[in-house]
Amino acid sequence: MTLSKLFNHEEFIARHIGPSDEERGQMLATVGAASLEALIDETVPADIRLKRPLELPPAQSEATALAALKAVAGRNVINKSFIGLGYHPVLTPTVILRNVLENPGWYTAYTPYQAEIAQGRLEALLNYQQMVIDLTGLEIANASLLDEATAAAEAMAMARRVSKAKSNQFFVDSRVLPQTLDVLRTRAKYFGFELVLGHPEEAGNAAYFGVLFQYPGEAGDLIDLTAPIASAKAQGAVAIVAADIMALVALKSPGEMGADVAVGNTQRFGVPMGFGGPHAAYFAFRDEMKRSAPGRIIGVSVDAKGKTALRMALQTREQHIRREKANSNICTSQVLLANMAGMYAVYHGPEGVKRIAARIHRLAAIFAHAVKAAGGTLVFDRFFDTVQVELANADAVYQAALQAGYNLRRVSANVLGVSFHEAATEDDLAALIGLFTGKDADLSALDAAAADAIPAGLKRTSAILTHPVFNSHHSEHEMLRYLKKLENRDLAMNHSMISLGSCTMKLNATSEMIPITWPEFANLHPFAPRDQVQGYLALIEGLQQQLMAITGFDAISMQPNSGAQGEYAGLLAISRYHEARGEGHRNVCLIPQSAHGTNPATAQMMNMQVVVVKCDENGNVDIADLKARAEQHSANLAALMITYPSTHGVFEAGIREICEIVHAHGGQVYMDGANLNAQVGVTRPADIGADVSHMNLHKTFCIPHGGGGPGMGPIGLKAHLAPFMANHVVAEVPGAQAGQSAVSAAPFGSASILPISYMYIAMMGAEGMKQATENALLNANYIARRLGEHYPVLYTGANGRVAHECIIDLRPLKAASGITEVDVAKRLMDYGFHAPTMSFPVPGTLMIEPTESESKAELDRFIDAMASIRREIDKVQNGTWPKDNNPLVNAPHSKADIVGEWDRPYSREEAFFPLPFVLENKFWPSVNRIDDVYGDRNLICSCPSTDSYL
Amino acid sequence: MTLSKLFNHEEFIARHIGPSDEERGQMLATVGAASLEALIDETVPADIRLKRPLELPPAQSEATALAALKAVAGRNVINKSFIGLGYHPVLTPTVILRNVLENPGWYTAYTPYQAEIAQGRLEALLNYQQMVIDLTGLEIANASLLDEATAAAEAMAMARRVSKAKSNQFFVDSRVLPQTLDVLRTRAKYFGFELVLGHPEEAGNAAYFGVLFQYPGEAGDLIDLTAPIASAKAQGAVAIVAADIMALVALKSPGEMGADVAVGNTQRFGVPMGFGGPHAAYFAFRDEMKRSAPGRIIGVSVDAKGKTALRMALQTREQHIRREKANSNICTSQVLLANMAGMYAVYHGPEGVKRIAARIHRLAAIFAHAVKAAGGTLVFDRFFDTVQVELANADAVYQAALQAGYNLRRVSANVLGVSFHEAATEDDLAALIGLFTGKDADLSALDAAAADAIPAGLKRTSAILTHPVFNSHHSEHEMLRYLKKLENRDLAMNHSMISLGSCTMKLNATSEMIPITWPEFANLHPFAPRDQVQGYLALIEGLQQQLMAITGFDAISMQPNSGAQGEYAGLLAISRYHEARGEGHRNVCLIPQSAHGTNPATAQMMNMQVVVVKCDENGNVDIADLKARAEQHSANLAALMITYPSTHGVFEAGIREICEIVHAHGGQVYMDGANLNAQVGVTRPADIGADVSHMNLHKTFCIPHGGGGPGMGPIGLKAHLAPFMANHVVAEVPGAQAGQSAVSAAPFGSASILPISYMYIAMMGAEGMKQATENALLNANYIARRLGEHYPVLYTGANGRVAHECIIDLRPLKAASGITEVDVAKRLMDYGFHAPTMSFPVPGTLMIEPTESESKAELDRFIDAMASIRREIDKVQNGTWPKDNNPLVNAPHSKADIVGEWDRPYSREEAFFPLPFVLENKFWPSVNRIDDVYGDRNLICSCPSTDSYL
Repeated sequence: MTLSKLFNHEEFIARHIGPSDEERGQMLATVGAASLEALIDETVPADIRLKRPLELPPAQSEATALAALKAVAGRNVINKSFIGLGYHPVLTPTVILRNVLENPGWYTAYTPYQAEIAQGRLEALLNYQQMVIDLTGLEIANASLLDEATAAAEAMAMARRVSKAKSNQFFVDSRVLPQTLDVLRTRAKYFGFELVLGHPEEAGNAAYFGVLFQYPGEAGDLIDLTAPIASAKAQGAVAIVAADIMALVALKSPGEMGADVAVGNTQRFGVPMGFGGPHAAYFAFRDEMKRSAPGRIIGVSVDAKGKTALRMALQTREQHIRREKANSNICTSQVLLANMAGMYAVYHGPEGVKRIAARIHRLAAIFAHAVKAAGGTLVFDRFFDTVQVELANADAVYQAALQAGYNLRRVSANVLGVSFHEAATEDDLAALIGLFTGKDADLSALDAAAADAIPAGLKRTSAILTHPVFNSHHSEHEMLRYLKKLENRDLAMNHSMISLGSCTMKLNATSEMIPITWPEFANLHPFAPRDQVQGYLALIEGLQQQLMAITGFDAISMQPNSGAQGEYAGLLAISRYHEARGEGHRNVCLIPQSAHGTNPATAQMMNMQVVVVKCDENGNVDIADLKARAEQHSANLAALMITYPSTHGVFEAGIREICEIVHAHGGQVYMDGANLNAQVGVTRPADIGADVSHMNLHKTFCIPHGGGGPGMGPIGLKAHLAPFMANHVVAEVPGAQAGQSAVSAAPFGSASILPISYMYIAMMGAEGMKQATENALLNANYIARRLGEHYPVLYTGANGRVAHECIIDLRPLKAASGITEVDVAKRLMDYGFHAPTMSFPVPGTLMIEPTESESKAELDRFIDAMASIRREIDKVQNGTWPKDNNPLVNAPHSKADIVGEWDRPYSREEAFFPLPFVLENKFWPSVNRIDDVYGDRNLICSCPSTDSYL
Repeated sequence: MTLSKLFNHEEFIARHIGPSDEERGQMLATVGAASLEALIDETVPADIRLKRPLELPPAQSEATALAALKAVAGRNVINKSFIGLGYHPVLTPTVILRNVLENPGWYTAYTPYQAEIAQGRLEALLNYQQMVIDLTGLEIANASLLDEATAAAEAMAMARRVSKAKSNQFFVDSRVLPQTLDVLRTRAKYFGFELVLGHPEEAGNAAYFGVLFQYPGEAGDLIDLTAPIASAKAQGAVAIVAADIMALVALKSPGEMGADVAVGNTQRFGVPMGFGGPHAAYFAFRDEMKRSAPGRIIGVSVDAKGKTALRMALQTREQHIRREKANSNICTSQVLLANMAGMYAVYHGPEGVKRIAARIHRLAAIFAHAVKAAGGTLVFDRFFDTVQVELANADAVYQAALQAGYNLRRVSANVLGVSFHEAATEDDLAALIGLFTGKDADLSALDAAAADAIPAGLKRTSAILTHPVFNSHHSEHEMLRYLKKLENRDLAMNHSMISLGSCTMKLNATSEMIPITWPEFANLHPFAPRDQVQGYLALIEGLQQQLMAITGFDAISMQPNSGAQGEYAGLLAISRYHEARGEGHRNVCLIPQSAHGTNPATAQMMNMQVVVVKCDENGNVDIADLKARAEQHSANLAALMITYPSTHGVFEAGIREICEIVHAHGGQVYMDGANLNAQVGVTRPADIGADVSHMNLHKTFCIPHGGGGPGMGPIGLKAHLAPFMANHVVAEVPGAQAGQSAVSAAPFGSASILPISYMYIAMMGAEGMKQATENALLNANYIARRLGEHYPVLYTGANGRVAHECIIDLRPLKAASGITEVDVAKRLMDYGFHAPTMSFPVPGTLMIEPTESESKAELDRFIDAMASIRREIDKVQNGTWPKDNNPLVNAPHSKADIVGEWDRPYSREEAFFPLPFVLENKFWPSVNRIDDVYGDRNLICSCPSTDSYL
């Protein structure tokens, strides 16, 4: 072997892709394909095949790629940030850092739809909700949104849904964070809302449908909002407060001031700034709004044995977003980060967080006192953590601070802002006082002399975090064991494959994850001076180059921080494009029947008229109907939204023609990137005809699902749309036009997880990316062929091939046996597997996407489980087991089923260890089947008393 | 609160110590003490109480201490090392790094004595043994030793045990690693062996009892050892080969050359150099030596249901080391590192490791070819990875290499050595060729031209790593899940407390663990130029200062890398001291009856005469007997070895008098540091009268047990003994005298884990260290008081107090019910607990050491479990349950017990979930009770076929 071969720079490809060469050969034989190449030829239409390798550098080994990225990271400068504006340095408790953020048991889990094997995360999220409820003084909180700005936008939309005021005017506190206002502007425009800016005192001046206040204001100033809220509500407005979570520890809560809704970022509770994200935004509200609220809410229910059990409440709203009148398309939340923030509260407890908040305030108060004592001028005397100072030599002080390693906020030519935070030290305080006063600080003396700066009426008097969970795990051993206990209740990819159709749960490799907790990526403020973030900008540009090569687009916007956000940003670019051409009237969005529910929801949010295009019995677009609709709406055609391969898992042969029809009528093609995993290296969206498309970095490009977030949904745009990507009002986006308002709070979305996708592409190279797709298709076709012996497989392409996923039909069996797709999903838990996607896109089916990362051995175990379940269904069908008492309807079987009399018509062995491999590596569902109806009827979304768990 | 209080710099103290203030109050009430101070007064004799705070800096917060240590680490320079000499840069697979080394599920486990809840580690260690067996070509391997040098010394000692040659001469290859020779010199002197150095060809020149060859030689040269081995064996010698594990992948194995024993370091299999350790040394040997071999061996047995199950074989040899004629005191092994090395083989598989070894060789061969082609002179033409070059301008090249970031080996004024390794790149090769030849390298051309440098007869032809475990887990998902599967079988401290008496399983805090995987600590060669390791030297000096403050000693030697090694180093210093004073005849070592088995073993190894001192019925030294023995042996008295508090967990009041008696007769006091956890901050060994003492950093100072290693056992010495601490022949130890030979391979032992103890002490400060001890005493007394209601508690001090551990007596219950201490230990597994120490120091008892890190809630769960077990014993005793069929004798209950008929006189609930908290957080033993006798009779220490697991 040559030295170069011995280096095996492509080693990672075989780490990422499950099947070995030998397994691949066996699998090709099973599916009846002569080679991988032949299989692709039979699967992907010839007219869209990419004929040349992707223009990507060759694969790098894990060590080489990590070293190269470390050098890039080294170009970032980690100054101490006192900028504020919604992002603050934190001290992440290391026990949480290592055992949650860096632990595949937490980060490789899926969204907790299958609640019986997700009780750990669900409890963690319930803690998070309880923390938000306590701090906001409201009655319910959801399990997180994407960022504070979009949370505010969601609150605005919800206000319109629930307000009785007829107005289309929404009042916004002029003290709002600038990035929040920017996102509100974008959303309001297409909702047809008018934003009215003003001081809180003006909030009752008209009958707004909603009002939004910032608390404290962006400049740090503190105002009691009780009166403004009351006057706004008197006019019929829904009162929303965007509040700093750390400030709420010390301040009277929004609920106590009368607010209906509170939103904000929980980043300060132990989540690194990460150059803008990801962090969990909170969203709390009054009980009566619970059926109008966006996002996921964790609720308390009971299982089949009456034991307390948790699950996502009111799920139907989320999973089947109303196709008409939707004004939210929110799907992803920020589970991993919400869990970190909740665990921060669990670990510190009420006394701990109060001490931290008090310390932060004390630092600010001492600083303010020192500045005043030295003759300085404060802009505001009442504040929590942020002090603005008016000074003649502002620029000199700013520059001196930079030299000393401190980033301040440059508010104006003669005003500087200093926001204190958990990570600020006594040395930092002394240094800052020195910078502002020119004198050495005597901290003890200043501490003795400085008064607090929170008005008496705004000091919090109500209790927080009183639930035992916040008062039990304060030693590291207790915390470690609590985290482990919860982790053990959840089935994640470190146990077995999670074959979610359309959700693409592939390997989240360790070498991809390692960089995100490097301090150089974790500890940067999104608004830091640009010369300090050159590493990030290089990383972002590198990833853009990679994604352009893969998709064929001319530009990439990193701002959308979820797939649904990507859809929104994409339609936004299309709308802006039409407007710029004087064709702002184009507002018809064609959407095939088979589309994801988010597509029409997004179109609605963009004020587009959704026109549904028929599909044939294979789920393919009915081209004749498409033509007819396009012609009918030719003058007003804005866009087509289409998923490719289709949501039915098929490469539609007519895709080029479809795009051409839309273009011929002046429309733009939005390609939903959910199934991009099947395209990479074998075709490209831009070549096929798409004008814009989002890329789920958390699906195709290996960002882990984190148990339900974070995600990232950058969009690729063709050159004519590129000028219309989102910019950012505070931190300009390179390549974006001035004045294009934002879709997310941060300029580059959840920037700190971008290294994951970058590393993946760098380690795979052109060849690896293509092989991944080929093997994803092989694995799916192998599953389809083998499962086809036991279940009907729906939808195949011209040559009988599926794409990267396959749908098996359970409806005939259900008709014959009464066993439902839910029973099968729950029964899979007893075999140690997470269910595939259930009843999407077709009710009564399972959609299975194995991804390329699963070995044949793992696929075979899954197939064995499904075959065994099929035999079980037969036993129900033929009467061996009663319809109401069999391992399927009783699934999952939990520890609680072990004890007591066993009066079932099947054995314990059949219940718990139905196949030999299960005994070898058993996963124990911690509860029995959960009663969703009970939970929704008796909605409880806060922590139950500890007794109820027994 | 003042700003300073708000900073809560002492926060970590309450993270480390389990009980909250409130719990502490309740516990003091239970034990009947007015305060912690009062409890200490009643427990620790007044005449040894430390009257002032420890001279340590105040506690630092986790973030502050981490930042400060990061700055210290930054003083290390990470050059690329090509030094060789037994230590090489590696590429640790990140999936192993994160999921083993950085995972508390692996690092907080105890030594796998309780095999039923340690099957994961045991399987990992069996893989490691199989890997060593394959690579060495021998029949059995143990589960690791401390380092290559001590492994060689153990091999020498074993050779004397098994050889029939009458000689006391041991032949050593002059090509041996210098540090190995240094350790052999130390050991040989006190064993009374004569070392004969020579070329391998001379190994048959006399009837040596053993011969040791290095393979390849320290200079990299390769010799076929077949003939030398044969001629040595013909004279009755045991033939030992110290071999490079990576070289063995490519070379004919020691076994194939006829060797009886092979030893070496497995560091190159993915374990970072860490400035010398820890790494796992391997030790392989012929089957007939298995009952003479040192260390732990994992063996295959069956459980009560006949299922294959693993456990430590032949344990009795280790746990009850023969008090007479011992020539090994080995206890600790390097489990965590052995597991990493074994998993490296699992992940890469045979083809992967062969490619890596081939690459390393190829790099060396190309380098050698390029040097020769440019007119250079090689010292040897046959080599695996190390090329020595003779050159006139050696120093200039060496310096130029340093400038370019490369560390070479400076062999002599005109010879440089270059050792290639896994982490070397093509760029490195080109750079090194450039440095040595002054020309740009055309690597492709050189690759084509360069011949291999391994003689044909030495190339490996035999297969390696053929077992399925090395051929199944090559994708990252498969590897991740395999690691998780094994982890889930083991009960570690992330599940519940492990109250091992004398083993002190306290919290291993995350912030203590984080620094050890920083590159600045992980990637340094122990023999790197001193100007590159200033960070390490500062860390070591800092830890020495901390430990001197805590113990009162005048000097600390970091070299011993286990507690037993510390004992050896301590007695060595004493012997050298006596010798230096012309009293080399002093060779009597007094050891109380109650001592750990290692004490007499160590004394034997130092050629001392062990004289046992009687103990009274409380386990305290019989002072009258001590006096008599000291007088009797006054002329020859060398030392007393004593544990304090005593192995019975009591602060003996007479300790000062005991030390004085020994000193009066010219003896030195060696204090065994096993129980130092009970002394810190309340008394000091040096103040009490000890002259030298080891400190188990892995007990008192938070280095995790790692599932059975690594440990660290530095010794503290009074000034008069300090000159006699171990030095190092390659890398001088600051403060040690020249010419004092070594006890370990590396100058500072397992240096890379020293940050753990350093961080612990830095974060606790003087106050925290004292509180830890006080709370350890409180927790132990609380356990003693509460368990005293159910079981007799043996041994208390003058005021009825125990020290940091307590012993409960099961003998009366055993007599009455037949239930043994083993039954209780196994039954605890069903409750989710690891058993305390069993039958030490008193047969038929359990010794419980809760440590300060356990909360009252956790102690209460344990007490509830023990109380429940007591009620179960009563049911056996009163005939409710038969003696041969009850939950105790059937314990532990595994998953296998769930299925099938249940014909037991107790319920499944009583079996599996005997208390409510167990259902909430069940730990599942993966096998039933293991049959030790079967395993020892049918000793199998290699991987069984996979079928046998089903």
